Amino acid sequence: MIASIVSVGNEVVIGQIADTNAAWLSQELAGLGIEVVEHAAVGDDMSRIVCAVKSATNRVDLIIVTGGLGPTPDDLTRQAMADAAKQDLVLDQEALEHISLIFSSRHLEMPERNRVQAMIPKGAVLIPNNRGTAAGFRIQIGKCEIAALPGVPHEMKGMFEDELAPYLRTVSGDSVVMIRSIRTFGVPESLVGQKLEHLMGLSDNPLVGTLAQDGVITVKLTVRAPDRKTAVELLDIRECEIRSLLGDAVFGTDVPGLEYVVAELLERRNWTAALAESCTGGMVASRLTSVPGISRCFVESVVTYSNESKSRRLDVPPDLIEKHGAVSSPVAEAMAVGVRDRAGSDVSIALTGIAGPTGGTTDKPVGLVYIATVTPDGVEVSEHRFRGERNIIRDRAAKTALNLLRLRLMKE
Amino acid sequence: MIASIVSVGNEVVIGQIADTNAAWLSQELAGLGIEVVEHAAVGDDMSRIVCAVKSATNRVDLIIVTGGLGPTPDDLTRQAMADAAKQDLVLDQEALEHISLIFSSRHLEMPERNRVQAMIPKGAVLIPNNRGTAAGFRIQIGKCEIAALPGVPHEMKGMFEDELAPYLRTVSGDSVVMIRSIRTFGVPESLVGQKLEHLMGLSDNPLVGTLAQDGVITVKLTVRAPDRKTAVELLDIRECEIRSLLGDAVFGTDVPGLEYVVAELLERRNWTAALAESCTGGMVASRLTSVPGISRCFVESVVTYSNESKSRRLDVPPDLIEKHGAVSSPVAEAMAVGVRDRAGSDVSIALTGIAGPTGGTTDKPVGLVYIATVTPDGVEVSEHRFRGERNIIRDRAAKTALNLLRLRLMKE
Repeated sequence: MIASIVSVGNEVVIGQIADTNAAWLSQELAGLGIEVVEHAAVGDDMSRIVCAVKSATNRVDLIIVTGGLGPTPDDLTRQAMADAAKQDLVLDQEALEHISLIFSSRHLEMPERNRVQAMIPKGAVLIPNNRGTAAGFRIQIGKCEIAALPGVPHEMKGMFEDELAPYLRTVSGDSVVMIRSIRTFGVPESLVGQKLEHLMGLSDNPLVGTLAQDGVITVKLTVRAPDRKTAVELLDIRECEIRSLLGDAVFGTDVPGLEYVVAELLERRNWTAALAESCTGGMVASRLTSVPGISRCFVESVVTYSNESKSRRLDVPPDLIEKHGAVSSPVAEAMAVGVRDRAGSDVSIALTGIAGPTGGTTDKPVGLVYIATVTPDGVEVSEHRFRGERNIIRDRAAKTALNLLRLRLMKE
Repeated sequence: MIASIVSVGNEVVIGQIADTNAAWLSQELAGLGIEVVEHAAVGDDMSRIVCAVKSATNRVDLIIVTGGLGPTPDDLTRQAMADAAKQDLVLDQEALEHISLIFSSRHLEMPERNRVQAMIPKGAVLIPNNRGTAAGFRIQIGKCEIAALPGVPHEMKGMFEDELAPYLRTVSGDSVVMIRSIRTFGVPESLVGQKLEHLMGLSDNPLVGTLAQDGVITVKLTVRAPDRKTAVELLDIRECEIRSLLGDAVFGTDVPGLEYVVAELLERRNWTAALAESCTGGMVASRLTSVPGISRCFVESVVTYSNESKSRRLDVPPDLIEKHGAVSSPVAEAMAVGVRDRAGSDVSIALTGIAGPTGGTTDKPVGLVYIATVTPDGVEVSEHRFRGERNIIRDRAAKTALNLLRLRLMKE
């Protein structure tokens, strides 16, 4: 069974809000074995709503329409669905009673305009809304099943979970769709693609795709199988192949970020960490401390923006800064050792660099960053040249630092 | 001129990411007087991409396609656009040189795979990508103009701003649409809505709407006018009314975040700042240092996660921590004074709290955060109770701290 999601509302097409309903529904439908193949969003415009839904009926088995079920004149989904199905709108008594009840329980009289929210196309099946006044419904057009739900996220989600999902389970057949994300860092997307090209056939099962997001390349596996056990087996086999092809560029499966892996590696060794940051300005610390329970292995971080602060807080000798400059390999090393010694931690990271947009020179351009890591095994310093705007340079430097520590912790 | 946005990528239709590109483009196009009337998203599937684009050519004057321009076999937008336009793909020499240069500047050999990113349909005009390897292009199909841009947000945005927007300005009609964002913090959306209700009519010009995002409530004004001067006048009048209704909850207009306002206030006074963070773990520092040029007014930040670190780094007396607990008003105050004194800065902020999910007690529940600010005027400490998950608590605490410093700096 394949599906389309149609979101109705000016606020979506004018860009006032991102369409998170569609993303949520796609994930829920995948869990029911229903693959969403397209999203559409149209404004509060009768002919565009009808056109979007009617044209999708030729391509998919199921359409979920969200939005446009409110009580105001710009709420057109009810009428559009009736037009698409060539049916009249009729008053649903159950829905009307529910709406009246909502108002009476608040000691209010039901405004006449809310009455329209109890109208559904003739032949449609009511989808009750226990969280608001907008009734939903489902109706058949040709071979395509269409469900209309309100756009308010918590109402939409509640109606989907309470009413629509149980119904769809009975009609969607037996197969399940499962998704797995293998996450990598430090290798360009093109190289990941090159190494996995033979696995990326468009009809392969699992389907393999790559996604680049803020420097992290995710290899996404989507599998379709008759049952959960088979799906997991197919995913396991493919994941194993991919991991052996990509080696230690893979930092985890279904893990939110590098910081979670670093935290786990620290915890496994019962080690503590301290950080010294300059250009990243607390970004590495902020990421690492986003991991619940990190207080067990994180001592402190110092963001030393000024040269004096580097000396005062991290014991970097002023003449070292004078000789090599604040952005240099020896200063990165001294920062890492300094914070490790003061914090009494087992490991440390230090970064010093030029995030821009100003402050670069020919010798030391914007994007130059030195990263030092200290473990019981000693100090390592590396030079990096990141490209892009200030906050991209900072983001990539922060992730690279976490990745360098991850790679060292894996070896220890 | 009316437009459609087509987003290409499995990650969108399977719901892995919300389509923020489409929302961003809608807003930008509105600013050029181009009304977006529909969005569509399709997976990495040749026939669906071609179908989505071709059917839209009958309904709109402009289609912007994002995504599917990467180097891997699942990147199909180039070929789909060539098919839709009934053209072959040809190698663009300028694009190829640019891609080679990116790799050679990183001392890497260009993988053969990346060559495909320099291919564009015959007859198309190159849209250069100064931030990555995926070349964009624009091409005419019938009377409809189609532009293809990569899906990576910062590349897409850069190419739109640098290349596409200037071109569209020359071809879109006369009336202008302008958007202005008045940003507030510390007041719930319902209260903002209540105070502005009389300005939020659906046919008002400017149209006024509110948008809540991560604790920041943005009041969005969209005006349509025959020319830029009239548009600005209408916006100025409405903004003035709104600011007088919302008072100092408004922290700025068209400003990316609170940190920019704090940086500007510091710079205006020629003051320096230092930070001491616990539960926010470097988030305040990371935000503040995201502002270009902040090194002129930012000295250092210390993330003191352990009690020992609070004493060693910030001179918080151990018996103060023992008596009141690390999460307490006196400790927040001592942290703020301690970092100010050590850094020799004019102002400081300190935060200490319980971000959760564990570590809360009946007396000191998850979400309890003390925030201290120091200015030449003295110390102020306040107690806050934030709700939500760990990273929501951290985010709201970081923003509240910046807002408290902003309000004090405005008074100085």
